[in-house]
Amino acid sequence: MAYVNPAGEFTRDQRYIATRITADGRDGFPVEAGRYRLVVSRACPWANRAIIVRRLLGLEDALSMGIAGPTHDERSWTFDLDPGGRDPVLGIERLQEAFLARYPDYDKGITVPAMVDVPTGQVVTNDFAQITIDLSLEWTAHHRPGAPQLYPESLRTEIDEVNKGVFTEVNNGVYRAGFAGSQEAYDQAYQRLFSKLDWLSERLAGQRYLVGDTITEADVRLFTTLARFDPVYHGHFKCNRSKLAEMPVLWAYARDLFQTPGFGDTIDFTHIKQHYYEVHRDINPTGVVPLGPDLSGWLEPHGRESLGGRPFGDGTPPPPPKPEETVPAAHGTISGR
Amino acid sequence: MAYVNPAGEFTRDQRYIATRITADGRDGFPVEAGRYRLVVSRACPWANRAIIVRRLLGLEDALSMGIAGPTHDERSWTFDLDPGGRDPVLGIERLQEAFLARYPDYDKGITVPAMVDVPTGQVVTNDFAQITIDLSLEWTAHHRPGAPQLYPESLRTEIDEVNKGVFTEVNNGVYRAGFAGSQEAYDQAYQRLFSKLDWLSERLAGQRYLVGDTITEADVRLFTTLARFDPVYHGHFKCNRSKLAEMPVLWAYARDLFQTPGFGDTIDFTHIKQHYYEVHRDINPTGVVPLGPDLSGWLEPHGRESLGGRPFGDGTPPPPPKPEETVPAAHGTISGR
Repeated sequence: MAYVNPAGEFTRDQRYIATRITADGRDGFPVEAGRYRLVVSRACPWANRAIIVRRLLGLEDALSMGIAGPTHDERSWTFDLDPGGRDPVLGIERLQEAFLARYPDYDKGITVPAMVDVPTGQVVTNDFAQITIDLSLEWTAHHRPGAPQLYPESLRTEIDEVNKGVFTEVNNGVYRAGFAGSQEAYDQAYQRLFSKLDWLSERLAGQRYLVGDTITEADVRLFTTLARFDPVYHGHFKCNRSKLAEMPVLWAYARDLFQTPGFGDTIDFTHIKQHYYEVHRDINPTGVVPLGPDLSGWLEPHGRESLGGRPFGDGTPPPPPKPEETVPAAHGTISGR
Repeated sequence: MAYVNPAGEFTRDQRYIATRITADGRDGFPVEAGRYRLVVSRACPWANRAIIVRRLLGLEDALSMGIAGPTHDERSWTFDLDPGGRDPVLGIERLQEAFLARYPDYDKGITVPAMVDVPTGQVVTNDFAQITIDLSLEWTAHHRPGAPQLYPESLRTEIDEVNKGVFTEVNNGVYRAGFAGSQEAYDQAYQRLFSKLDWLSERLAGQRYLVGDTITEADVRLFTTLARFDPVYHGHFKCNRSKLAEMPVLWAYARDLFQTPGFGDTIDFTHIKQHYYEVHRDINPTGVVPLGPDLSGWLEPHGRESLGGRPFGDGTPPPPPKPEETVPAAHGTISGR
């Protein structure tokens, strides 16, 4: 899925399966309740976006979710958390099987999130950036009453612009720092990351959310990286100018979202830490998973209400997650491992 | 110098050359101005103790100092910072030569600090714990006027007791966490480390120094680990419950010492980071050295004066280091790399 080029720079392979599930079914896959399964890992920031958006929009009943375990080998994600090591709906042990069902010669990354067509067992798409947008715009018939508008037409240009910079410098920037194969490549990634974080801090000092005065797709995308910053990126990826907890504006912004239904209740710090520290043996040969950091601060008051804003706009917060989709308390802010 | 046992625990080889340089010369090596050379690396916390004590006691003219470079190969410390790659006084390229001059079959650790007998080129001792005590008690004839008492008789029992716990849980504890070969060994080391740091925070909440009301050997020994905590141990050794900068009492205590002549002016953050991240390829295979953390906080007011205490007791602070022994500004709190 990724490689380090001769200059030591990490480059993300962005060739995803671009088939889309749409209301009109123009790619052959119409939106349909019960037909698809969203496969995720709670560890993965790209999958985490889809988990959050599905929660916020109340798509749980229309779109089921399979959860792969946090660690994997070179054949990628497995359903080792499920009884018998098989996804109960798809009946497969490895997500790879759904990719090979679609393309027997598939040789690109086996990645989450992946939308799988349950009747055929084939992956429809793993194009993470498009998946959440389509959940917002194509799946409207199945949104819960009170679902927020995460990608409203009037703000789309601004959201796209913010997302672009957040993706290159932050979401992917932490990986560029962590997987840099040369000091120069690392130095550059670090500088770009923190200069963007400074820019975000400035922007968020005076407004509660990234674009407009409600939660949007832009907040979802920044949040999933911020949630992993201190547990993983700060140490494991050497993004260590400061911790998130030492950047007051971003830290309050992240806590505000964390405490908003649909965000923090999707975060499994245990899976997050296990994934990065156990899978990346190339940068953590022992596989030892740190016990820190202390995560209790996530639940502390953030004071961002004073900036105004209406988290869900004219909508409402989602209800708590179903029991079978609830992150175990011990994987949350209490223990973290 | 160290190894990981079958349970995955890091064990420090503590077999040092125990010959002592004493006022009465009972081991054949009497204290004598100009005769010995203290070989150090500014990266090494054990050597840092001796650098600080030599500064505090004003032994610079009586005991010269050779500074090895921050990185080394399996044959250990080299004088690559010196013109021609040779120590100008000892004329050697590697500290190993001085160990082999003493014992041709020497097969234990080539470690700093090392006291070398200049006329013979032989290492006299590398017993770091004894070296600083002897500088305090045996080298009194060469102390500067106003030198502090770092190991006063009346406090010795208490200093020894504090030092013992600080050594096992903190000074060496960070290494036990960082070099743990199993999750269990790491977990134990982490818990012991932070429980001792909590104990130290409590002790230092109400008193300015660890023992008595002046700087002692106990403060020197704790300080050299604290100075390396955020730049190295927090990330590289996974000592990440919190940063030093997030432990208010210890952080203020460390800043107080850092700002005291003889402490902060011995710290070379560049050498410290280069050493750990470039030498320990077993836990940092890429050798990439982090750009962070931001070190500017070290110079901020600490407020510890309100606890009373007289840093140098009836003595006085040392003058600034000589130009040739001054840490380059760019290696201090401004840049750090």
